[in-house]
Amino acid sequence: MQLTVLGTGSGGPFHGRNYTAQVLQVENCYFLIDCGEGAQHQMYRCRVPSDKFQQIFISHLHGDHVFGLIGLLTSFCLKKRTAKLELFAPPGLRELVEHTARLTGVVFPYELVFHEVDAAVSKLVFENKHVSVHTIPLEHRGNCTGWLFREKPKPLNIRKEKIAEYAISVPEIKKIKGGGDLILPDGRVIRNGELTLPPTAPRAYAFCSDTAPSDTVADIVLGVDLLYHEATFTDEHLEEARLSCHSTARQAAEIARAAKVKNLLLGHFSGRYTDLERHLTEAGSVFPETTIAVEGGVYAI
Amino acid sequence: MQLTVLGTGSGGPFHGRNYTAQVLQVENCYFLIDCGEGAQHQMYRCRVPSDKFQQIFISHLHGDHVFGLIGLLTSFCLKKRTAKLELFAPPGLRELVEHTARLTGVVFPYELVFHEVDAAVSKLVFENKHVSVHTIPLEHRGNCTGWLFREKPKPLNIRKEKIAEYAISVPEIKKIKGGGDLILPDGRVIRNGELTLPPTAPRAYAFCSDTAPSDTVADIVLGVDLLYHEATFTDEHLEEARLSCHSTARQAAEIARAAKVKNLLLGHFSGRYTDLERHLTEAGSVFPETTIAVEGGVYAI
Repeated sequence: MQLTVLGTGSGGPFHGRNYTAQVLQVENCYFLIDCGEGAQHQMYRCRVPSDKFQQIFISHLHGDHVFGLIGLLTSFCLKKRTAKLELFAPPGLRELVEHTARLTGVVFPYELVFHEVDAAVSKLVFENKHVSVHTIPLEHRGNCTGWLFREKPKPLNIRKEKIAEYAISVPEIKKIKGGGDLILPDGRVIRNGELTLPPTAPRAYAFCSDTAPSDTVADIVLGVDLLYHEATFTDEHLEEARLSCHSTARQAAEIARAAKVKNLLLGHFSGRYTDLERHLTEAGSVFPETTIAVEGGVYAI
Repeated sequence: MQLTVLGTGSGGPFHGRNYTAQVLQVENCYFLIDCGEGAQHQMYRCRVPSDKFQQIFISHLHGDHVFGLIGLLTSFCLKKRTAKLELFAPPGLRELVEHTARLTGVVFPYELVFHEVDAAVSKLVFENKHVSVHTIPLEHRGNCTGWLFREKPKPLNIRKEKIAEYAISVPEIKKIKGGGDLILPDGRVIRNGELTLPPTAPRAYAFCSDTAPSDTVADIVLGVDLLYHEATFTDEHLEEARLSCHSTARQAAEIARAAKVKNLLLGHFSGRYTDLERHLTEAGSVFPETTIAVEGGVYAI
C-alpha cells in the first residue's frame, strides 16, 4: 500500500497548497480519494497514472473535495477512455456530474457507475481480490463519509530455496501458498510449515476528510497502519473548529491515540497558517507518530 | 490596459500549462475572462486581486474555459464577499452555477447577476466610464463568443506648467480637460489648444478563445491594439483543427493580418506540443508581431 497526497489545503489555494485529493495504490490498483479543484494538475506533476483509476471515492460534496472531479472525467473523454469507472459518494454526485456534463457538452465514451453510499453507517461498499472498502461516518456538515481500506489476507510466502530443493512446479506453488502440503513423486509428504513463511500482515488505511473529533471514528479505525485525519486548525482556533465541524491537530492526535493506530497523517490545513509547526507540536505532544502531509508526498503504508 | 494570462493550454494540464483564464486591467477595473480549472491557483501565484472582479466574461461552456468558475465563486463566499458580481456568458451559465451551488451546499452571500449574451451577433453587452465590451461571434462547437474591450475616449491632457502659470483651480482643470477655454479674472481668454495636449488614444483588446478562422472575427477586431487568438494547432494538424473548429497558429496570424491589428498573442495550445517554436515560426511568417503567451505573462496594451 502506498499513498500519494495531492493536496493538503482547505479554504483556498494558499501557500502552494492544493485542495484535498489522494491516490491509494494497493498492489496494481489505484484508488482516487476525493478530487478538489486542480487535482488533475497535481496528478500530472506527481506522475500519477490516472488512467488506471477504476474506482473513485468522494467523501462529501463540498467544493474543496469534489470540484476537480468533472474536469478529470472530461479529460478521460479526451484521452478516449473506454474502461468503466465506478464512483462512490454520498447522495448527489450522479446529479452533479450528469447535469454539469449536459450543460457543458460532455458525452462520456466510457461507462460511469454511481454507487450512492449511506454516510451515517460503516458498511462494506467495495471489495476486489486485494482490498475491501468500508465507509466511516464522519461528523461534518451534511453527508460526509471517510473510507477504510483493508487489504485482504495475503497468501503464505513460499521459501525460495525449497522451490529448487524439491523442483516444485508452478501449480504446486499456488497450492502451497494456499496452505497445502507437497507430495513428492516417491510419495513422501513435505508439510506446509517446512515450505512457507507467514504472509505479510494485511495493511489498513483510513481516510477521514472533514470531521469534528468523533469516538465513532476512533472505534472504526482501531489499529490501522495509517490514519489520515483532517487537522484544519490549531488549539488557538478550537472554537472555530467546533463551529465549523472540523478538528484541531491535537484532537486528531487524540483520535489516533484512542484508536491505537500506528501512524497519523495530518492534512486539510486552513489557509490562515503559513507554516505548520504548531500543528506538528500540538499533535505530536499527544501522539508522537504524527506526520504533517506535504503536497505530492508519498507515504508507504 | 494590461493583460495577465493565467493559462495557455487546452486538453489537459500538460507541460506546466493551465486552462484558459485571463485578467484584463483597465484603469482600476479588473475583468476576468474565462475561468478554466485551476484559475484560482494561478490567481494566487500571479497575485491577481481577484476580490476586485466585478464582471466576469465566459466565452463558452466548455470545461477548459469554465470549470474553475464555481471554485472561485465559492472562495468568494469564504472571503465573505458582499459586492455584487456580474457574469456574462452564452446561455446555461446560470443553471450551471446555481445547480452546482445547490448540490454542494453553497449559499452566496453576495449578489450574482447573470447576463445571458447572444453568441451569434456582435453587440454591446457592458460598459462603464472606462471601457465598453462587445461580443464577437466565434465559429466553434455550440455557443461561443469572444469579447472586444474598447477604452472610452480619454479627456485632453492638461499641460502641467500651465496650471502653475495661470493658477488654475481644480474645477477649471476638469472643464479644460473636457475641451473648455480658460477665462482669467481680468477677462482674458486662454484658448484650450494652448493649455492641453491630445488625449492618449483609447486602446482595444480582443479575446477569441476557441474558434475556426473567421472573416467575421477579422472584421470586428479591425485595428485593435492586441488580439488574443487561439492557436490550438500547427500546420501539421490542419485537418484536426478544421474538424474540431479550432485554428492553427498560421490561421490566427492570417486573421491578425487581415484585421490589421497591432499585436497578436497566441494561446490555447494543444497538450501534444511540448514546445511552441513551430507555432511562433508559422504564425510569425504571416504576421511578425506575434507573441506566444506564457503562463502568468503580463502584457501591456
